[in-house]
Amino acid sequence: MIILGIDPGSRITGFGLINSRGNHSAMIEAGPIRLQKIEDIGERLVVLADTLEELITRHKPDAMALEKVFHGVNAKSTLVLGYARGVILLCAARHNLPVAEYAATEVKKAITGFGRAEKTQIKEMVKILLKLEKDPKPHDVTDALAIALCHAHMGPIKARIKEQEAKFWSRVKG
Amino acid sequence: MIILGIDPGSRITGFGLINSRGNHSAMIEAGPIRLQKIEDIGERLVVLADTLEELITRHKPDAMALEKVFHGVNAKSTLVLGYARGVILLCAARHNLPVAEYAATEVKKAITGFGRAEKTQIKEMVKILLKLEKDPKPHDVTDALAIALCHAHMGPIKARIKEQEAKFWSRVKG
Repeated sequence: MIILGIDPGSRITGFGLINSRGNHSAMIEAGPIRLQKIEDIGERLVVLADTLEELITRHKPDAMALEKVFHGVNAKSTLVLGYARGVILLCAARHNLPVAEYAATEVKKAITGFGRAEKTQIKEMVKILLKLEKDPKPHDVTDALAIALCHAHMGPIKARIKEQEAKFWSRVKG
Repeated sequence: MIILGIDPGSRITGFGLINSRGNHSAMIEAGPIRLQKIEDIGERLVVLADTLEELITRHKPDAMALEKVFHGVNAKSTLVLGYARGVILLCAARHNLPVAEYAATEVKKAITGFGRAEKTQIKEMVKILLKLEKDPKPHDVTDALAIALCHAHMGPIKARIKEQEAKFWSRVKG
């Protein structure tokens, strides 16, 4: 299964595409979508949308995984982050990509076994799990790969829980 | 000049297209884009984007006018409002539409002469200015028309100020 992990940001949005089978995952492509030098916010969103469209069309991922928003930053930055996420969710829906969201602690726990792991621990585990020789850069790209890996681990578990729940309820109702 | 006024909302987004020449404005088309019954947020954004695309392609407006966000609501609703605005700004940029933003008080002042006018006063003035026989409904549509009218009044003034500033600076520098 091909997973497109995204770390959304209005200045830099990181993306990481991985191919995951069972316990094995390999990186297909990853990188930063740099938006910070484009002054006009509309133009930024066009570059973001076009880049994602191109990646989705070329790699045909089966799912998208996003980091859940951490509330508590100021209202203005939340709004601008909302712009980027809105465009990302639009791209996913246009290609019928299911979107899974994970909190930062879930990602850390799935990757390192510890919900409060440091950035360097995450980076080392991402490198080990994907057999990378070089550090992914900048950290937005590491985060995007970590989110994709988190979905590779957690997606099947979540799907099985949903299935069991559905079975349970059909038995109760039937 | 054709102006597309938008009152962005994640449940209902109001739009109002007007044709404005000098002091005269006429309504072309207006209505609510109802999104509240669509459960999936991605699907909502697709409906919003498709409707705007269709309106822009059909009417070829010269400008888009949006209400500035009122900060201070909770972070979650700010984020979801950001999704809708991100998609709206993307549509505008894809069609090279300049976007003007006005605070609610600016809109009220441009329409009624009073920055703290009531909703019913705004509605009556919108009806008079556009020679409408019926009340625009729901109020999101009235607001979208009011924003478009505000841009019809304020746009040329703002443009002239910019021009004067540019002339001043070219004289100072030259």
